[in-house]
Amino acid sequence: MPEKNKSLGEQVSEQITKLIIENHWDVGDRLPSEYELARMLGVGRSTVREAIRALVSRNVLEVRRGAGTFISKKCGVADDPLGLAFIRDKLKLAQDLMEIRLMIEPQIAEIAATKADHDGIEALRLACIETENKILAGQPHMDADIRFHTAIASCSNNLVMPNLIPIISRSIEVFIGLTVKTLLQETIETHREIVSAIAEHDAHRAHDAMLLHLVYNRRTIDDIVRRQG
Amino acid sequence: MPEKNKSLGEQVSEQITKLIIENHWDVGDRLPSEYELARMLGVGRSTVREAIRALVSRNVLEVRRGAGTFISKKCGVADDPLGLAFIRDKLKLAQDLMEIRLMIEPQIAEIAATKADHDGIEALRLACIETENKILAGQPHMDADIRFHTAIASCSNNLVMPNLIPIISRSIEVFIGLTVKTLLQETIETHREIVSAIAEHDAHRAHDAMLLHLVYNRRTIDDIVRRQG
Repeated sequence: MPEKNKSLGEQVSEQITKLIIENHWDVGDRLPSEYELARMLGVGRSTVREAIRALVSRNVLEVRRGAGTFISKKCGVADDPLGLAFIRDKLKLAQDLMEIRLMIEPQIAEIAATKADHDGIEALRLACIETENKILAGQPHMDADIRFHTAIASCSNNLVMPNLIPIISRSIEVFIGLTVKTLLQETIETHREIVSAIAEHDAHRAHDAMLLHLVYNRRTIDDIVRRQG
Repeated sequence: MPEKNKSLGEQVSEQITKLIIENHWDVGDRLPSEYELARMLGVGRSTVREAIRALVSRNVLEVRRGAGTFISKKCGVADDPLGLAFIRDKLKLAQDLMEIRLMIEPQIAEIAATKADHDGIEALRLACIETENKILAGQPHMDADIRFHTAIASCSNNLVMPNLIPIISRSIEVFIGLTVKTLLQETIETHREIVSAIAEHDAHRAHDAMLLHLVYNRRTIDDIVRRQG
């Protein structure tokens, strides 16, 4: 949205963003030097430096010391893009995130089953095995679990979903700290069921498996909230 | 997520974020001075300044010239939190955002109908009238329309939804530029229908009205994509 009173650094941030989009600079590409950018945009180097700092803090760019400034693999997706850190009631937050996941993820699994291609299914299988191995080894499996759910989102061919899923999945477990034994066994089995349904392009089985998976999770969260509330 | 190699400014940003949460500083509250923050956190003022700049660019803080630094009313929700600016196929992006809205918003309307209280319904009525007036006056109505959909999200009592809805609604119209006449008339009528269903706590009527509203919109987007594709 256009805003008044934008600082020069802010305006230059936007111009650099435009450059990235128009020049099709991709993840890992190196940005021109500060000096060059200052020349291209007709501003001072200190303004370019301020703009780059702002874009780094928004995960658009990353600075590798001694090597230069690069397009970040975080693709401009903020670390806490919904400002969830500022929501104080963490238990209700976990329940509300689960409500959103239940709206989205069964349908995503359904679409994934109809649209997944060979590469997508292979990536999903890998993410499934990786999560299982972490669980069986008693290691933290949250990141692997999020990669699994994100791999399903990628299979759905929706451009936005792979960015959205990590945001609504991560916070729940961070706040609640789910390590319930029965849930771990359930996770392994339902993940396998979801992968097999998507691989066989069986849309409603994928939908139902994901629905059950999330419902089990929600029950556990609700139990925790009841005990703590 | 914890990361190595965080700069000092980055670490101080996180400490300031913690201060905001722990001290229950709210939107519009004024932050202690740079000098005071530097003292509290045991770092130099230039580091505090860098940290504040980063938090401003993340919409956590805002600087009002001559008045000080305040907690931003944007509540740390980034301007483009999903990095949508970096998705190049804008037509597919519009379709994919609509796919997500169709998953979420009918269910949100349904929940809103069961949970809305008097104040929520009044706010919704106002947002509805405001949107209508803009449309009838031939003025840009996108912001009012987003406030309407966000008001429904607020009625649902889900803490995250009011942050999520503007993000997935805004981009669609920006990219497509919907000003189709028939759609405007439809918007007025369906918005009224949604408000009346929520006000009467009629859950499935609210669900269906929202579903129809979005389906009409999707048809229009699909038509545009067909013509441009």
